[in-house]
Formats: sequence, structure tokens, C-alpha cells
Amino acid sequence: MKLISYQYNGIDSYGAVFGDRVADLREVFGARAPDLKALIAADLLSEAAAAAGKAAATLPLAEVRLLPVIPNPGKIVCVGLNYGDHVRETGCEITEKPTLFLRVAESQVAHGDAIVMPLESSKLDYEGEIAIVIGQGGRRIAEADAWNHIAGYACYNDGSIRDWQTATPQWTAGKNFWRTGGFGPWMVTRDEIADDQVMTLVTRLNGQEMQRTTTDKLIHSIPRQIAHISAFMPLAAGDVIVTGTPGGVGAKRTPPVWMKPGDVVEIEVDAIGILRNTVRAE
Amino acid sequence: MKLISYQYNGIDSYGAVFGDRVADLREVFGARAPDLKALIAADLLSEAAAAAGKAAATLPLAEVRLLPVIPNPGKIVCVGLNYGDHVRETGCEITEKPTLFLRVAESQVAHGDAIVMPLESSKLDYEGEIAIVIGQGGRRIAEADAWNHIAGYACYNDGSIRDWQTATPQWTAGKNFWRTGGFGPWMVTRDEIADDQVMTLVTRLNGQEMQRTTTDKLIHSIPRQIAHISAFMPLAAGDVIVTGTPGGVGAKRTPPVWMKPGDVVEIEVDAIGILRNTVRAE
Repeated sequence: MKLISYQYNGIDSYGAVFGDRVADLREVFGARAPDLKALIAADLLSEAAAAAGKAAATLPLAEVRLLPVIPNPGKIVCVGLNYGDHVRETGCEITEKPTLFLRVAESQVAHGDAIVMPLESSKLDYEGEIAIVIGQGGRRIAEADAWNHIAGYACYNDGSIRDWQTATPQWTAGKNFWRTGGFGPWMVTRDEIADDQVMTLVTRLNGQEMQRTTTDKLIHSIPRQIAHISAFMPLAAGDVIVTGTPGGVGAKRTPPVWMKPGDVVEIEVDAIGILRNTVRAE
Repeated sequence: MKLISYQYNGIDSYGAVFGDRVADLREVFGARAPDLKALIAADLLSEAAAAAGKAAATLPLAEVRLLPVIPNPGKIVCVGLNYGDHVRETGCEITEKPTLFLRVAESQVAHGDAIVMPLESSKLDYEGEIAIVIGQGGRRIAEADAWNHIAGYACYNDGSIRDWQTATPQWTAGKNFWRTGGFGPWMVTRDEIADDQVMTLVTRLNGQEMQRTTTDKLIHSIPRQIAHISAFMPLAAGDVIVTGTPGGVGAKRTPPVWMKPGDVVEIEVDAIGILRNTVRAE
């Protein structure tokens, strides 16, 4: 099932996508699950699949305004330096533990929305990634059990303002500019992607391929990420883990490539779909 | 006014403290402001002050279970390396922009609660700090206008698991262990502390003074912090900024001093009060 969060007639809702149609699930679940995060938290994904069906998909996808897949995640935990070619291009070293940083919800945009180049900098870079949405939460989740805590997967563009990212020892500012991170187009539920299936991740800027990798090249695997993060903080339904970007970022090219107003950036994951964003100046 | 969040009879509430009594404000505002963050967001602090009064304070403070001042902040932004003596003891350098990292709500505990030494490490350190709670939100807040965006102040203990903090280039894990950050005992509203008033901040471990500074020694002043953070992300009512710790942390002493089960750690700010936590092993 492909699940989206969206606005329609000014009202926030969520639903399941079937081709070019959407089945409104908020209508089905009402107060039991007012948003997608609540649906996941209430363990209603199977019930949603039964309720949705193609027949119920009456809303044209083209008429809704997509929101980030989870508009209100409790936490967005990003894994840095998690593919060897990216570690090498940055001149950093591989560490035994995953390198983590946090994003805030306000830094995200939906599929189809514009990523914003701020007034403060033109050093706007892409980072194609795969995002995990947590289903059942937990603390100290064992690697062997980690797949059971995944609700689904989405594409992510961990948009970064490089000069602000590297101005201090911590990357927080450069990773949290308003509306720089793409999250979409939808969450593909876990039942549609085999655990440990090798996914191919490609980033294109104005149609040109900039990054390409496969998930078997992850330094810290998806189960390892879930185990590590949940070792220190409880994970909750709707939390997002952004699993890392491969080599080929704009900042490390010669000459550097920055995204600029009018650009189109796409993150494609074979098992998920394509996250497409334009770029606009603020 | 001193505002607290608390549980009483199993119900989350918030109120104003007068001596050893509390005036329940959730009772007053009901659905208009179900929690302290909502009270601030609805700009009801003046109305709360009028409603609270000593006469309304009928609940014994000793009978409520305190919660972190804002139990559900949208963002907790911490400023690192913001006093010269702490920058020196860490061997880092002063940067033109403030160094920032984020904490998550689950990493916090209330005044009187135990800070948790996790199973994963015994390198648990204190960091006495002053926290700002944002009132009116905004983006690109000017330094000159920054004070007008403060709802109030609290004490903060930015508890850190040092080996996890320094295991990778980003401090996230070590700053986000479950229940390691003290936030309390209350928020003193802005009207009770003059803008730019020099506050004295002291950390005591089992009665012994470990850190002492005054806010005129901040490298990046409070208005500068608000201006810088809001340059890249919108600040919202109830967001928390933790303004930095001075020299004297346990990790940089010879030999290092780690907090251990049974310890009592206090963060005292003259204009605010004392945040006191015990330490327990998980």
C-alpha cells in the first residue's frame, strides 16, 4: 500500500494511493486515527489496507496537495557518513557507531513542493536517501527484530545548506533550514518490500544522474541503525530515520554544483518511487 | 509568575506556584489552553497571571508530580561551546556562528526526578545551563527584538553521556539518552527578570560547587542566539533554547568526575531557582 498525507479543501487528511486516485482514510477512521502517524501508532495498517481498496479511491491524486509523508514526526533522526564513497569524498573517517543528527519537521517539504533556497546562502545541496518510518516503537530493539518495527519506506532529500553546516563543529543549522528537506512521495508499507531487499537509490538534478547506490553498500545497515538509535532513545510510531546518502553530493564536485531556483531534483528508489521537487528562491 | 507542568491524580495539568501552593490553570483555561505550551501559544500569560493569584493556589506543591517545564516542546535547541572557559577545557575553537545541537523531549526529566545512568555507559556528566522558553514565535527575529519573543526562563541540566557524544563527529547520541536532561523546576516569566539582567549560574554535585558563571560571559548572547536560530528555522511558542554551559564539566577534570547512582545534582540560577535531580542506574 502507498500511503500519503495531504490537504484537500483546506483540510489535512491521509489516504492510500491507487494509480491516479486516492482513498481517503481519515474519513474511514475519524477520531480513531486523525492522521497517518496516529494510524500507525494504533496499529491500523492492516485494517486500512482492507478498508482502502481500489473501489474506495474516488479522489483524484492530482487534486490533493501532498504533505510530507509524516507531517508531524516526533523525531527525524538522520544517519550521516553511511556509504563509503560519501565518507571518502568528505574526507571523514568511518566510525564504529553511526553518526547521527536530527532534523525538525519545519525543515521538510512534500513531493511536488519547492525546496527553498534561503536568503542566507546559495550553497544549497541535495542528498538522496531512503527514509524509514517506524511502526511499533520500542527501546533497545534487537537487530534481529528491527524489521518488525518498520511501518514503511519513503524517498528523502536531505537538503543541506553547506556553508552553515560546516561553520561550526555541529551540522544542525545547515541541516535544518526551513523547507529544505524533501520527504515523499508516499510511504510504501513494509509488506511490499522484502526485509533486506537491495534497493537502488538514484539522485537526478535536471535529469542528470548525480548519485547512485544500492542499500547493500550501507556501512550501518537498517537493522543496525534501528538498534543503535533505540539503544539511547525510545523510538515511537511515526518517527523517521533517514538512512544516509552515497557519494556524488554537489559540494564535493569540481567545481561544486549548487541547486538553484528553477532546478528540478529527483530522488528515485526502485522499490518506492520518485520524489520530485523544484527549487525556488525565498 | 512561576509556571509548572505537573501531574495530579494521574492527569496532566499546569499551574502557577505561590510558595508551597499551586493554582491549577488548566482548570481555568480548559480547552482554550490544555497545556502550558498552548497557554503560551495563545498569548494568555497575562490573563493567567490575573486568574492565578495567591487565593486560587489551593493545591499543595508537594502533592503534584512535576513534569519537565514544557513536556512537549516542538524543538529543543542547545547551544554548545558558549562560555570561554568551557571552550578552552574542551580544546575546541570559538566560531563566529553558535554551535547548535538538538535534544528530543524524551531525553528530559523534571525537577525532583532521577536522571538515568543507562546500561550502555557510566560516563554520565552534568552541564548546568539556563533555558529560554519561546513565547511569540517567528522567523528571522532581529537581535533588537529578541527579548520580546521570550516567555520565560528555567534551569537546565544538559546531561551528557560523554563516550557516546564523542564516538562520532556529531554529538546527537550522547545528548539524547532517555531521561538524562533536567528541565525545571519552573518557568519564571519574562516580566520578573529584566532583559539582559546578569544571571549567576551554579552547578553543585553532592553539595560541592562544580561550575559557576554569569550570563555576561556568554560568547553568543541570548538575543544573538534567538536571531541566529530563527534565521534558519521558525521558532514557535514553547520551543526551548538551552543557552550553554560554562567550564568545570566532569569529563574535563583530572581525574574525570562522573555522576553515579545516588548523587544529587543541582543547577541554581539566582533569578530562577534550583533544579535538583538525583541520579539512578537503569
